[in-house]
Amino acid sequence: MRAPFRRRRSARRYTRRVSFARRLHDRIRQTDSRVCLGIDPRPAEHPATHPDAFDGDPARVARAVVTYFREILGATHEALACVKLQSAFFEALGVTGIVALAQLVADVKALGLPLILDAKRGDIGSTARAYADAYLGDGVFGADALTVNPYLGVDALEPFLRASRENDRGIFVLVRTSNPGASDFQDLPLAGGGTLAETVAARLTELAREGLDEEGYSPVGAVVGATSPRELRSLRAALPHSVLLVPGYGAQGGTAGDVAGAFRDGVGAVVSSSRALTYVGPEDGWAARAGDAARRMRDDINAALG
Amino acid sequence: MRAPFRRRRSARRYTRRVSFARRLHDRIRQTDSRVCLGIDPRPAEHPATHPDAFDGDPARVARAVVTYFREILGATHEALACVKLQSAFFEALGVTGIVALAQLVADVKALGLPLILDAKRGDIGSTARAYADAYLGDGVFGADALTVNPYLGVDALEPFLRASRENDRGIFVLVRTSNPGASDFQDLPLAGGGTLAETVAARLTELAREGLDEEGYSPVGAVVGATSPRELRSLRAALPHSVLLVPGYGAQGGTAGDVAGAFRDGVGAVVSSSRALTYVGPEDGWAARAGDAARRMRDDINAALG
Repeated sequence: MRAPFRRRRSARRYTRRVSFARRLHDRIRQTDSRVCLGIDPRPAEHPATHPDAFDGDPARVARAVVTYFREILGATHEALACVKLQSAFFEALGVTGIVALAQLVADVKALGLPLILDAKRGDIGSTARAYADAYLGDGVFGADALTVNPYLGVDALEPFLRASRENDRGIFVLVRTSNPGASDFQDLPLAGGGTLAETVAARLTELAREGLDEEGYSPVGAVVGATSPRELRSLRAALPHSVLLVPGYGAQGGTAGDVAGAFRDGVGAVVSSSRALTYVGPEDGWAARAGDAARRMRDDINAALG
Repeated sequence: MRAPFRRRRSARRYTRRVSFARRLHDRIRQTDSRVCLGIDPRPAEHPATHPDAFDGDPARVARAVVTYFREILGATHEALACVKLQSAFFEALGVTGIVALAQLVADVKALGLPLILDAKRGDIGSTARAYADAYLGDGVFGADALTVNPYLGVDALEPFLRASRENDRGIFVLVRTSNPGASDFQDLPLAGGGTLAETVAARLTELAREGLDEEGYSPVGAVVGATSPRELRSLRAALPHSVLLVPGYGAQGGTAGDVAGAFRDGVGAVVSSSRALTYVGPEDGWAARAGDAARRMRDDINAALG
């Protein structure tokens, strides 16, 4: 099965004229899917039947990553709201891994799928602008949205927000993550009331007020894990203008019922899953099984939304 | 002026057998310098006399970056404690920028200089392990130390710490940064007392207790900005086992007097400066002027230490 790469440039050019949130929502309605396919390349887990998978040569490993995920994209894309590339796994493959990242960025765009680069960047001033240039511009790593870490403060988010407004892109700021240790700092109660995560959410809501799209969404999205459903509902309410990126589904324990609270009128969020959709057993036929897994996740979430 | 690249492999092999903090301290004593040269490539600011500087071709721009900073390293390295490469500016140059990063990583190592990769990474579980593999291993991006963001919690720091212990590397965890917005979250007072930055420091000190080197330092370093000298002194006391990486000197307003509180017995910290040491006017002779600027910064800090 081959994905129809490089056929939808014109659709892409059209979609650039509307906000990221609107492009994502249009796609959610068109596919009736809220699934974000996470691409976290782990070459050691590629099926033994895949050519190049176990070769130690960096260029062949990178090629194996590209061909493997092209097949996965071909089999899943009709059931997806968007795709998320996890930069860490490409960086771990060295220079040729970065070439593979640039190639998959181009492939996902060619399919007309909204693309989130999950790189959790965060820095100050001109350094933040350099990251925004890299990931929210028209270069080889340019995505529709980037995940961003808020620890450095609001002024460190502004270059990302400015690039998002100028280029119709978006950011997903980490608010409450899905790991057990998220509670170490994010859940700390503040002297002024609320937790750190709630305070970050409040600052994001201030930032998000300006320049809302027709449906009331801003380029300022938020990452809120599926592993704490009560917190997910409360942060959904606290972030009225933000699309939520919800990790932690499946492998990390989140269920369709857990993530239902992230949505409003069936939009406003996407739920990501990586390993459970892309590494689906070592036997031949992995692409078809990935397609089945994506459709099942789509249907499970839709059923929970009622 | 050409730097003596690829001549000190044997020194490097020796130094790998001791902790990162010890290697850095040995270098500080050897050079009597506490200066960390920050490499933040801004090709648009390269001197007009530099070949390739203003060419739009990505490969030539990347080549200009490498040749420019090789000259700077050649002129400055004897006055440096270490070098910090800012990943964002390389990422902004696309795939060939990443090749330039790998080349400068190799060049700095060949000079026997401790290398900090300033990438402010942070993620959970296997994703954090992928970043640690990329930046604290023996691959083309492998540095002596990596800057890390603590927002995701202590479990997100552990893969970086494990790689540091296994490979004699280090991490510098963001505690209090040098930007105005650092106060937005890092200075928030907590219900349990202290600020977020102080709580992060306390958790780092717990993490740092195990496996100290002969001088009582751990692989867990911390980033504490020079722009708040009072906070710098107080965090120095709160982080007894951590080497401090102190940004904010010069361009951001920190003076030699401001950073003096980061040191203990003349070690335990390095002070970074990027633009003021590496973009020193458009006329010819930039490398010699960079050397002068590095020696002046070294001497100013030493004078403030008395």
